[in-house]
Amino acid sequence: MRIDGTAYRTIWPEEDGSIAIIDQTRLPHDFSVVRLTTLDEAAHAIRAMLVRGAPLIGAAAAYGVALALRTDSGDAGLEGACATLLATRPTAVNLRWALERMRARLLPLPESQRVAAAEAEAAAIADEDVEINRAIGGHGAALIRAIAGRKAPGEPVNVLTHCNAGWLATVDWGTALAPVYAAFEQGIRLHVWVDETRPRNQGASLTAWELRHHGVPHTVIADNAGGHLMQHGKVDLCIVGTDRTTASGDVCNKIGTYLKALAAHDNGIPFYVGLPSPTIDWRIEDGLRQIPIEERDGREVSELTGRTADGRIETVRVTPDGSPVSNYAFDVTPARLVTGLITERGVCAATREGLLGLFPEQA
Amino acid sequence: MRIDGTAYRTIWPEEDGSIAIIDQTRLPHDFSVVRLTTLDEAAHAIRAMLVRGAPLIGAAAAYGVALALRTDSGDAGLEGACATLLATRPTAVNLRWALERMRARLLPLPESQRVAAAEAEAAAIADEDVEINRAIGGHGAALIRAIAGRKAPGEPVNVLTHCNAGWLATVDWGTALAPVYAAFEQGIRLHVWVDETRPRNQGASLTAWELRHHGVPHTVIADNAGGHLMQHGKVDLCIVGTDRTTASGDVCNKIGTYLKALAAHDNGIPFYVGLPSPTIDWRIEDGLRQIPIEERDGREVSELTGRTADGRIETVRVTPDGSPVSNYAFDVTPARLVTGLITERGVCAATREGLLGLFPEQA
Repeated sequence: MRIDGTAYRTIWPEEDGSIAIIDQTRLPHDFSVVRLTTLDEAAHAIRAMLVRGAPLIGAAAAYGVALALRTDSGDAGLEGACATLLATRPTAVNLRWALERMRARLLPLPESQRVAAAEAEAAAIADEDVEINRAIGGHGAALIRAIAGRKAPGEPVNVLTHCNAGWLATVDWGTALAPVYAAFEQGIRLHVWVDETRPRNQGASLTAWELRHHGVPHTVIADNAGGHLMQHGKVDLCIVGTDRTTASGDVCNKIGTYLKALAAHDNGIPFYVGLPSPTIDWRIEDGLRQIPIEERDGREVSELTGRTADGRIETVRVTPDGSPVSNYAFDVTPARLVTGLITERGVCAATREGLLGLFPEQA
Repeated sequence: MRIDGTAYRTIWPEEDGSIAIIDQTRLPHDFSVVRLTTLDEAAHAIRAMLVRGAPLIGAAAAYGVALALRTDSGDAGLEGACATLLATRPTAVNLRWALERMRARLLPLPESQRVAAAEAEAAAIADEDVEINRAIGGHGAALIRAIAGRKAPGEPVNVLTHCNAGWLATVDWGTALAPVYAAFEQGIRLHVWVDETRPRNQGASLTAWELRHHGVPHTVIADNAGGHLMQHGKVDLCIVGTDRTTASGDVCNKIGTYLKALAAHDNGIPFYVGLPSPTIDWRIEDGLRQIPIEERDGREVSELTGRTADGRIETVRVTPDGSPVSNYAFDVTPARLVTGLITERGVCAATREGLLGLFPEQA
């Protein structure tokens, strides 16, 4: 996608062999590209969330292996790099998948070929993510186009999204936002309602930033506002991402997604989920009972970081001293509330039959 | 209610004739009592939201009239005071009601009797608010007690509330929280989930503060978390306040209330509204079509004020420069999602028949 007219990915190799990333901890207030040159720098970038979003974490880990092999391309160096990177975010599915793929590709090779092969494999992982998301964008844009055809001329299609499943969470395009970018490229008039997404504010800080700099019309709202907007006809469809989707179509995503799905259902508004197929967990049927929900540090709720009027970055506390805080990171939206799943192979119903229709090899 | 063991109201007359209030703009970080001695100080306290909450605003305006008459007890002084106070928060229903009551009581009196009569009438308005809320507390505590009887021994009743409809919004007891305080006084074990309530954070800053200092167990959560908690059996009932309720039981309250009512309905959890009867608008049936929703300054969403680790109060921006922001302050929860209305005369169904059963004089 573009930042003020210049095309970017979230991660790319430089000619000197270093890996460039956008430091997402400094958004939305500062756009800063960081060069990674060592395994430790790559591990830090993932651990400290300079890069985040499951697909991007996978690509960053793959490039981290390539950086490590430039110092030590032996078996011990490879195994050590994979172990170090795996420990950075132990719950991210894509991280393990990317590292296992790198290890399986590289271990059989002679040491002298490993650096070049690692760089090529990491680039392939990144390119494949882009292609999956581009395909999701194409299928989702057709849904947006159909809605646009039913609107009055000149009226934008209003999309509501939650959290950040945009291009910053992937290598490019995003998952939930890929249909928005694809529709925008096709010239369809649209406007995005951006849920702030408390407590980590990924909507206000990341989704708003990427839409703004790509040039897509949008408005930031409190998470509380979506139901009211839907009651008053101001939302045409919702599209969210997912961290894990069950074989029966239950969708685990950022906390608060379920509330928006309820409101969409109550108001007859389509609720779609953009998902690359690696996020489907074919072993699980019942999302509410079988997906464990991470509880994170309460300070994400009680404290908040932003920029003061004179440009300083400050962290402020908003709750009283001594008031306990709880911080569940995800919730599960039952499949019955999901209108459809937008995958790289097309759109299907949020049911086992729907998913198997697109992915028959999983039957 | 109590602050660390000492009983307080939110507003009270001092022996020297001044009026004491708690400066709510400094909560939760600083407990500060301010003395009002003039009309201008009273008007400022309402306008700048040192006092807020419809019932408390009404009482503060009444005391403001008494302060004004100490300087000028003539007809012009009385009329001018009412006009000044009415202009502080033009949309608050209780403000107009309290001022009209003061004017009607005082205008027929000789000037020499007006100061004493004004002080007595303001005290009566405050006392009546306390009695209404105490009655709401009694009726609501019976609901909580019934739920407690069905829980395992030692298990607390988990109440979820949104925004601040606690004693800080009234003269004492609160509306939505009056049942919580009454049940707590009766020795019923309970725990309150406190919605942060973006964008103005009245839950995190006011509800959490008053529960903490009264000693009621509670936990602050992001507004996004309530649905997940309900899905997992962690909420036994919801109680919220209301700014205006229609004759058919539609409930207008702080933005986001509707989303919680949907989640409660989806999970079979009772959803109650604590309301003093003056907030019932008997002229209106359809809340969604007939209640105008205030749009407030977008900076309430894009900026946030809190305390830094070293004790400074700072305001920080959380959205990107140039991203538009929208800020609807209230939403309407349709009566079909409301289990019952807790009024000072008892609990009734959220229907015209239910309300008229308790208030037959409105038929």
